[in-house]
Parts: sequence; structure tokens; C-alpha cells
Amino acid sequence: MKVFLILFAAALACAQDAAKLAEDPTVKAALNAAKNNEAHFIDEQVRFCQIPAPPYKEEVRGKEFERLFKNLGLENVRIDNAGNVIGVRPGTAARPNLVFAAHLDTVFPPETDVHVTREGTVLKGPGIGDDCRGLAVMLGVIQALNEAHVKTPGTITFVADTGEEGLGDLRGTKNLFNDSLKGQIDKFISVDGTGLSITNIGVGSYRYRVTFRGPGGHSFGAFGMANPIQAMGRAIAKIDAFDVPTTPKTTFNVGRVGGGTSVNAIPFEAWMEVDMRSSDKASLEAVHAKFKRAVSDAVAGENARWNGRGPVSASLDLVGYRPAGSTSADSAIMITAIAASKIFGFNGRPGEGSTDSNVPMNMSIPAITIGGGGRGTGAHALEETFDTTNSYLGTQRALLLAVALAR
Amino acid sequence: MKVFLILFAAALACAQDAAKLAEDPTVKAALNAAKNNEAHFIDEQVRFCQIPAPPYKEEVRGKEFERLFKNLGLENVRIDNAGNVIGVRPGTAARPNLVFAAHLDTVFPPETDVHVTREGTVLKGPGIGDDCRGLAVMLGVIQALNEAHVKTPGTITFVADTGEEGLGDLRGTKNLFNDSLKGQIDKFISVDGTGLSITNIGVGSYRYRVTFRGPGGHSFGAFGMANPIQAMGRAIAKIDAFDVPTTPKTTFNVGRVGGGTSVNAIPFEAWMEVDMRSSDKASLEAVHAKFKRAVSDAVAGENARWNGRGPVSASLDLVGYRPAGSTSADSAIMITAIAASKIFGFNGRPGEGSTDSNVPMNMSIPAITIGGGGRGTGAHALEETFDTTNSYLGTQRALLLAVALAR
Repeated sequence: MKVFLILFAAALACAQDAAKLAEDPTVKAALNAAKNNEAHFIDEQVRFCQIPAPPYKEEVRGKEFERLFKNLGLENVRIDNAGNVIGVRPGTAARPNLVFAAHLDTVFPPETDVHVTREGTVLKGPGIGDDCRGLAVMLGVIQALNEAHVKTPGTITFVADTGEEGLGDLRGTKNLFNDSLKGQIDKFISVDGTGLSITNIGVGSYRYRVTFRGPGGHSFGAFGMANPIQAMGRAIAKIDAFDVPTTPKTTFNVGRVGGGTSVNAIPFEAWMEVDMRSSDKASLEAVHAKFKRAVSDAVAGENARWNGRGPVSASLDLVGYRPAGSTSADSAIMITAIAASKIFGFNGRPGEGSTDSNVPMNMSIPAITIGGGGRGTGAHALEETFDTTNSYLGTQRALLLAVALAR
Repeated sequence: MKVFLILFAAALACAQDAAKLAEDPTVKAALNAAKNNEAHFIDEQVRFCQIPAPPYKEEVRGKEFERLFKNLGLENVRIDNAGNVIGVRPGTAARPNLVFAAHLDTVFPPETDVHVTREGTVLKGPGIGDDCRGLAVMLGVIQALNEAHVKTPGTITFVADTGEEGLGDLRGTKNLFNDSLKGQIDKFISVDGTGLSITNIGVGSYRYRVTFRGPGGHSFGAFGMANPIQAMGRAIAKIDAFDVPTTPKTTFNVGRVGGGTSVNAIPFEAWMEVDMRSSDKASLEAVHAKFKRAVSDAVAGENARWNGRGPVSASLDLVGYRPAGSTSADSAIMITAIAASKIFGFNGRPGEGSTDSNVPMNMSIPAITIGGGGRGTGAHALEETFDTTNSYLGTQRALLLAVALAR
């Protein structure tokens, strides 16, 4: 009961903090500056979105952010060995240190036409929302804080990070927490995409490509030999029977298979791609362990069934890993985020996703991912759009949240 | 014991028949003619082999055989609705009626260069052995019988048949026995390829492509839905555990699989190709029945496992069927074939294969497939060769066998 009361009191304090902060004359001035500068940063959003930033090729856009960070007066601006662009806005003290991030990379390959068009309030172009919007919000927040001379008690480290999308596998954020800013991050906020969502559940995943190999041979002449496709069938049948918890939601999927050269040949190779997800670390590790056991049991079963003739083996290639984690709905960072959203008239509802915040969530470092405001459609599609109507509210919410958390 | 004695006596009679026949002056004259005409029919073999006869496109070569059959004086020359070219050489009586066949079709697609080259005794070109050799032997036999005025007690019906290879699925021979010559064939001999083999075991096969379908969806968002790849995995695991007899040799193979669009999507489709073989009718039907049950049980199991959500279904497409059968090693036709081989100094050893004879063997009609003599390499390859050294012996053996069986 005592614990509950303390939590409740802390929650109340966080919510009151955000409300009180919004009334602080300096913060108010910063919020006004954010609104006034919105048109400029939307122009900027269009401009830098036309610098391609394909998976694993974020350098050019990164270089531009290095220049912008320096122009905005950030200190110790640098690019780490994962390509993250890092710039510091010191507070009264070095700690707590809040990392405020948005990701540089898109899902689009280098040959994509990344020209952005405008029609009324609607911008159209690959990546315009995901995550050029987050990057623009970040610039808008820095500029507004500067204009209003906001001095935060703690420090804010701004990061334009790499590798958030697909096979990028969160490599920028992983490097931030495990190498370039290791042990120096107390809280984490990522602005990703459009709208006003708040993501506090980080769905983790393992992705594997498994290849089964054997000598192969003629279906009639060499009959009696182990068969890589049949070994794979055994593994898939085992996977299909996995028992996984509904809460926390934990899933598995055999998404693709292939193999064999002819109906009348014992194949020499077969492969499958398997995806496993959970927002819960332990549940993800449990299904991961079951999966590995299913593959090795299937291979052993296949070889035993054919008395070891032409034995089959399997190799597991990890093609994706995103750590699982979550930030409690009762945590200070979540209560602050919801309160900050309400100040601008929004229902900040918690949700789940797979974003840069997965990494700190997995390490139990307070982290959330929020939308950058406005309205988007077609993320990851060539026809992606971003409607700028009232998008300044997204910048304002992010600013208030940054100030509230940098203490 | 009595049965054994009768069989033994019959066997002795067959062997003696062949030996006696070879000494018959008319037959001797025919055998000499076969040898003398060999060079001419090898020229013919080269000539008509350069008329393309791709799978399902045997018409042009067939038309040429219609012309050749007529020129050779065969009666009632016609092309049936499967493209088989049929011509009759009447005996003293209409029955027994021996069908003497060779197949028109090759495995090569229409665009193949079918030019034949000669270097010394070696011919080189696609299909030169399989089965231009059989076709040449057939023409040589007809011409030699004519020259020597051999009058057989029974009738010989010569057939240049279609669809022996691969997906042709024996359609010419099936049509012969089930339609155009239904009920009119007492014995069957096919000359297929080179060498001096005797095939009396017809390995039958079923080949299926099975497609599993479901609605599909996001691997995380739609989790809980049946998965076509996973249903297929269940089916493959069941197939892998099939118990099949070693004698008669019965086999199964999942040779190819595919399906799915992305590791993180529940696929909407998956497919597998399955081959089952046996020389024994009942064993082939038994594994065939198990296979169909495995697929339907796997689908039912998958749908039950996911409580019928996004149910999966399977469709079975029969892509190949060759009936199984065999001609006993003790049968008159086999004893005659072995005796005839020995007369020319060869060990006629029985063997197994999948040829036009499968169809009559399956119907318990005495049938064998024999090689056309000479020596071949690379059947089904573009670099196929045929060495004509002493190839006349193949024509002579076929002739003696035809005369011995047409009674």
C-alpha cells in the first residue's frame, strides 16, 4: 500500500511538473518560438529529405546534420563509428543526461527518386514522415530552446541516429548504448514518424535464416538417404506446435521457404526464414531457445529416421535481432509524456512498436518513442505523405517533454 | 511341383523356339538383310533425328513416319488421337497381335539445335540414341522381314508412339491400350535407346504438386492465424515418417518446396512437389493413399491448432502418373528375350525402368523394353552420342524377338 501511494504521489508530481513547466515564462517563450519557427523547419524537412539516406548509407544526410547541429550551437558535435551524429546542449549539470533522437535512415534503396512535392499543406516523398518529420522536430526543439534561452537542469544530447529501419537492426542506437555513449544515458526519447502516438512497449524480435544441407541424390536410386526438405518439414512441424503466452504477446512465424531442384531428386539444400517476437525479454528468449532446439531435434530426428545415411545438417544465420523491453505505464517518463500530451489536448495512449527505444527499454533505461505531429500516410511506401496541418503541436509537445525530462 | 515342371517345360520350349527360329532359312535371310541394311537405316536414323520432336510436339516427325510406314508396305497406316503412328504387318492370323513400338518424342524443347554430326562410327546429336535408335531399329526390322518374305503366324503392329518422356507421362502408350488399340494387343515390345538391356520391371510413379493456401497476414499483428508453410511442414513431417517396403522397392521424396513473401508475413501460399515410386502396383497405391491422407491430416491439424482462424486449404495437382507393373522373369516373353540375346552372344539381364512397357505391364499384358544395340552416352543431354559399332546386332535381336513373339 505504501509503495502504491509513493508511486501515485510521484505520478502526480510528474503530471503537475509538466503542467507547471508549460506555464514557466521561459518555457512558454520556447513553445511560442517552436510554433513561430514551424514553417521554416518544414522547409528544412523538405530540403534534407531530398538527401538520400538508404539503409547502411546515411553518411551524406549525416554530414548535413553534423553541419546543422554545429550551426545550432550544439557542443562536442561528432559522428560515432556507427554513423550517429551526436551534439550536446549542456544543462546546469551533466546528469541526468537525456538523449533526444530521431533516425536518419529510410527503407528506400539508393536508386529511389526522393524528390519531395508540396500541394497545399501536404508534402509527398519517400521518408517525408518516417523519419524526416522526427529530424525536423529535433531541429525545431533545439532552435526554440536556444531562442528562449532555456537552461535545463540536466543535459540534453541530441542524436540523428542510423540503422533504425529493417535490416539496419537498430545498429545506431545499439552502438550509442553499448559504445559511444555507454553508461552516460539516463533517459531516452525518440521522435519517430508522424501523429501523436506514444510507444512504451518495445517489441523485440529474432529473425533467422536456417539452411539444411545434405548430399542429395536420385529420388528412386538414392532412396534411403536423409532429405534436407524433409528435415526442414520436421522442424516446421515442431515450430508450429510451440506454446507461447498471449500476454505478453509472443509470436513466431515461418515466413518463407525454398529448396530443391527437381521433383525426382533428393534435394541437397533447403532453407526457411523464421521470425519470433515479443515485448517481453524472457518470453522472447524462451521462444528463441525452443526454436533452436526444434531445429537441432529435427536434424537429429531426420538422421535417425534414415539411419545416418547421407546425413543432413543445419546452419542458423541470425539475420535480425531487436531486443525486447518496455517502459512501465506508471513510470515517471510515461506519466510526463501523457500529461504533456493532454496539455496540448491529445489523448496520449500507450502503444507497442519496434523502434530505437527497444534498446534502452531492454536495458531498463526509461525510454519512449513519440510521433512528431501532423498526419502521415504510407510510411515505407514511395507515395508517403505528411500533412503539416497543426504539426507545430508535435514540436511543442516534444519540446515540453524534453524540458520536463532533462531534470 | 507340377506347376514348376510345366513352367520349366514352357521355358525350355521358348528358348528352343528362339534358337530354332534363328536357324529357319527365311528368318536367317531376314537376319542377313537386317545386317546388310544397317548402314542405310543409320543414315535414316541421322536424317529423321533432325526433325524436331519436342514433348507434345511430335507431329512433324510423326508425319514422316506415316510416310515411311506406307512406303514399307504396312497396312492400315494411321495416326491416332494421341499422335501415335500405327501400321500393320498382317500375319497368317490377326491374333496374337504383337505391338512393336519405339517412341517419337525427345526431352528437348523446340528451340534445340537437333543437327546430328558424324565422326567415324560415332553420331552426336540430341535424341540420336533415345529414341532415334529405337525408331531406326523398327524400320530395319520391317524392311528385313519384307525382303525375306517372312510370314508370321500372328500379326505385328508397328507403332511410332508419343509422350514417352517426362511430362509426356506415357500418353501415347496409354492411349494405345485404352483407346485406339484397346483389347487388341496381346504382347508388347518397345525398343528404347541403345545397348542390349532388357527391362521387365516397370517402375510406376505418382507426382504431385500440392499448394497450401490461406489468407496470410502480418507475422505479429495477425498472429494466431493458420500458416500455409506450417501446414506444409506438418505434411512433410508425416511423409518423412512413411513406412514403405524395401522389396518391392517403394520410395517417396519431397523434391521441391517454395512459398512466402517475407520473413515477417504469414504467407498466403506454399507449395511442394512430391514423387512416389514403386514397381509394385499395390505398394504404389498404398504410398499414394498415405500421401493423400498426410496432406489432409496436416491441413486439419493446422486448422485445429489455430482454432480455425484464417483456415488453410490444400489442392493436389497430379503432375505425373506412370502405372507400375512387371513382367515375370519366368514368363515366355522374358525367356524368349534372354534366349534371343544369348544367340547373339549377350547376357540379357533383366532390369528395371520407367518406359512405355509400364502401361501393358500394369495391365498384365506381356511386355518388355529392349535396347536398340550399339553404344550410347548422354541420353537426355545435348551431347548425346551413339556409337554404331556392331549396332546391327541390336536390329537382329529385335527382329528375332519379333518373329518369335508373333506366334
